[in-house]
Amino acid sequence: MSDSDAAMTGAEALVSTLADHGVTACFANPGTSEMHLVTALDREPRIRSVLCLFEGVATGAADGYARVTGRPAMTLLHLGAGFMNGGANIHNAKRAWTPMINVIGDHSVPHLRYDAPLTSNIMGLAGPNSVWIKSANHVSVTGDLAAEAWAASFGPVPGPVSLILPADSAWTEGATPGKTRAQPFLRAPDTALVEAAAKAVKSAKKPMILISGTALTGPGLGHAARLKAAGIRVLTDTFFPRQVRGAGIFAPERMQYFAEGAMADLEGTDLMLVAGTQVPVAFFAYPGKPSLLVPEGCTPMVLGGPESDSAAILEALADTMGLTEAAPAPTLEIPDAPTGALNAATIGASIARHMPEGTFVSDDGVSNGLPSFMMTGRARPHDWMMLTGGAIGQGMPLALGAAIGAKGRKVLCLTGDGAGMYTNQALWSMAREKADVINIVFVNHSYRILNIELARTGAGNPGRVAADLLGLGRPEIDWVKLSEAQGVPAVNATTAEEFDAALARAFSEPGPHLIAAHVPAR
Amino acid sequence: MSDSDAAMTGAEALVSTLADHGVTACFANPGTSEMHLVTALDREPRIRSVLCLFEGVATGAADGYARVTGRPAMTLLHLGAGFMNGGANIHNAKRAWTPMINVIGDHSVPHLRYDAPLTSNIMGLAGPNSVWIKSANHVSVTGDLAAEAWAASFGPVPGPVSLILPADSAWTEGATPGKTRAQPFLRAPDTALVEAAAKAVKSAKKPMILISGTALTGPGLGHAARLKAAGIRVLTDTFFPRQVRGAGIFAPERMQYFAEGAMADLEGTDLMLVAGTQVPVAFFAYPGKPSLLVPEGCTPMVLGGPESDSAAILEALADTMGLTEAAPAPTLEIPDAPTGALNAATIGASIARHMPEGTFVSDDGVSNGLPSFMMTGRARPHDWMMLTGGAIGQGMPLALGAAIGAKGRKVLCLTGDGAGMYTNQALWSMAREKADVINIVFVNHSYRILNIELARTGAGNPGRVAADLLGLGRPEIDWVKLSEAQGVPAVNATTAEEFDAALARAFSEPGPHLIAAHVPAR
Repeated sequence: MSDSDAAMTGAEALVSTLADHGVTACFANPGTSEMHLVTALDREPRIRSVLCLFEGVATGAADGYARVTGRPAMTLLHLGAGFMNGGANIHNAKRAWTPMINVIGDHSVPHLRYDAPLTSNIMGLAGPNSVWIKSANHVSVTGDLAAEAWAASFGPVPGPVSLILPADSAWTEGATPGKTRAQPFLRAPDTALVEAAAKAVKSAKKPMILISGTALTGPGLGHAARLKAAGIRVLTDTFFPRQVRGAGIFAPERMQYFAEGAMADLEGTDLMLVAGTQVPVAFFAYPGKPSLLVPEGCTPMVLGGPESDSAAILEALADTMGLTEAAPAPTLEIPDAPTGALNAATIGASIARHMPEGTFVSDDGVSNGLPSFMMTGRARPHDWMMLTGGAIGQGMPLALGAAIGAKGRKVLCLTGDGAGMYTNQALWSMAREKADVINIVFVNHSYRILNIELARTGAGNPGRVAADLLGLGRPEIDWVKLSEAQGVPAVNATTAEEFDAALARAFSEPGPHLIAAHVPAR
Repeated sequence: MSDSDAAMTGAEALVSTLADHGVTACFANPGTSEMHLVTALDREPRIRSVLCLFEGVATGAADGYARVTGRPAMTLLHLGAGFMNGGANIHNAKRAWTPMINVIGDHSVPHLRYDAPLTSNIMGLAGPNSVWIKSANHVSVTGDLAAEAWAASFGPVPGPVSLILPADSAWTEGATPGKTRAQPFLRAPDTALVEAAAKAVKSAKKPMILISGTALTGPGLGHAARLKAAGIRVLTDTFFPRQVRGAGIFAPERMQYFAEGAMADLEGTDLMLVAGTQVPVAFFAYPGKPSLLVPEGCTPMVLGGPESDSAAILEALADTMGLTEAAPAPTLEIPDAPTGALNAATIGASIARHMPEGTFVSDDGVSNGLPSFMMTGRARPHDWMMLTGGAIGQGMPLALGAAIGAKGRKVLCLTGDGAGMYTNQALWSMAREKADVINIVFVNHSYRILNIELARTGAGNPGRVAADLLGLGRPEIDWVKLSEAQGVPAVNATTAEEFDAALARAFSEPGPHLIAAHVPAR
């Protein structure tokens, strides 16, 4: 311990230990119990502190930051209530296997017994959605627990960790930085399994492989293209954390969202390999419809789950099979300027026209996301990031964090109006941070997906009350005003021409923009 | 079971059972797993369904509804993520001992084992902040569990209950309504304890009683006035769920917020009686400052906690002591129109001038709430409702629910700009429901309370990063646009005259309004 460490508080040890491990961003909404963390951040130039006006923005941003950089960000949350406010996007991050370090302030240990108003069972609340959770109940452990939390966020299965910091551990001096840990690696391929898979493929009539994780990077998709050329169908999950795509990059297919569509699509498949993800299941259950999306008589063979390096698995499999040819990749194709009515397809065409190479897309577009995805398959190379956990309100926060992690690259956020309202406070942080995010809000004044689901679940035709519970049109939300109120310039677009011009302009200017894209509700 | 019940789904049994028990409002944000609840609500004319664009609005509104009506509302939340989004205001409701019935949709029971994207451990997440939690894992129990949930929300200690409804229990037919239950009563006074207290008062030099709950109603405060006339100091918690006050109503004192102030104020107190609440503790701990707000040598005597009928306790105590005289109540005093600079005190004067009798005040004003409270002590009689749990973002949702519960009475919401941003989506529901809410946003572009706390915790002087983490001024939020974007007419006020005129106009018109009151940051 050097002299300069002698007076280090627990908060300072925590913050500097995370910085030592390469954490460079903190998405924060602090309260009284986190004041010493605030001043510790003030003294730590290696970490950029970003204020978020709601914790769900902070956790979604940390997710986006990690998806873009491969490194966890820290968040700063105010006790159990702050954790819950950030909880839905932590759930989403857990479902994306995103490393994330949630630092949750708590009352001082001696104060907890008095059951003060903001006291809650943080271990109980945060435990279910944390891959690791500990409380630094003494100043002496703050540094080491920070290092342990950082490492735990990478695995065995990557995900959000919760490090609880009681206020007295934060404010007391005498802490030391945690010993530096090595970053855990993703699991390497299991050779025996890979050989068994290679053998099984030979005897299969209609084999497929479902991939996620590192398989969706450039190298991973290069190996996937070899498998495809050998007659193996390659699919991704319906929703994946991040995939590189566009011109020159092999394009896997995507699992269909609705169970009946997915099952029809997979009919006849007699071998399902899985790498970097789980055996596919329906998003929701419906009366009389299957949960597991595996054809009858087809036994899934899991080569590695989310804890594994799926790119390495694909490489090992292709090498074992002696594959050298690769399936072709899409070539660049820039559509003509769309005209006429504005809808998800013409929006997709405009995106394909104007999106520069290297753009990160944050897709929380719900029922309008798919056409944009399909229209950009031959666009300039870019990365697509999706809502994996199903809790809407991720799109704008994720885009904020991505923009801060990927300086110099543009971020495009696709969000429904229902989803966007959840965490609209993200706009303010985009304005403050001058984040290069173009937000496209699909304005249809409706939870459109729910109107579809209402019919599918057999819940009956909606009466007035049900229609009101699924409709956002009374009153209509003015997205331009909502955005300008928070410092983000915004325009309405009601025709394909207007949208195309607005998008071109937004991409040509620095800083955040919002386009309210008025699309049909049906 | 009548013929008409034969085809009742679990969702219908749940909804109609709650309606049978007097539940008349549902604050909802449904998803796919709640579609059968949506259609059940569609067929239940006794329950008013209110769509909220974020679950924290729904739970805060249910709290406001119950505080105003004395009856629980139901909420409709979408799985674990929906619960967490509503979690902070459920925490606040638990700290206000508010009955509330959170109905949480879940996947169908057979679907749960597949770990679909939206699956989470709802029992684990919701348990810590629920006074009762059960899952209706079979259609046959839906009705009875709804009745049990309703009763449990009233006690032993009133608070939020969680009723989890798996989708298959919701959609399956063959359910029956639950057997009607009686409403549990608050606990009656303990005669022996009351007699002991009466004796202890006689030998005390400086006795006091700390009150909350039914003690803060008109009858309760009438009894409190008798105790006051007999030399017992009467105080409320710093933050209480609801208190009737103003001209003609005995005004208790209020515990101070900061621990050192509270301890100085209580110095010399040698007897502390407690009725309807807990022994007082500091909101936060600070280095070297006390947690328990009880003077040395003074042993608190708890006559009844939040589970008790504190008005009846005060009555029993006053009767046992043979008290007939009552301390005087404040007389009506309407201030002159304030002039000059706008600040929390001139705002309070305007409120005292224009607030009609019977107004419900929802106070989430943080550092600006106290002056308004003090300025309205002699105003027309009204009810004041506070943030008891410390999780900001309650003000506007609580006001929404209060307006729906208290048809014909005005609601005044006081909120900070930091607090207001948390759940700004409440404005949209106010517009849709034409709720009679006047929102006053104290715009100081700052988490002002945190700037105060930063100094108090000894965390040091803020540098640029710390100042940025506590400041909302870059960019400044345009509250008028934010409000108009969601359908609520709004104006800025920068002088006392402007504010006074705006408030008079807002009270004279039906429906929601917002006034952005620009007050000093220091």
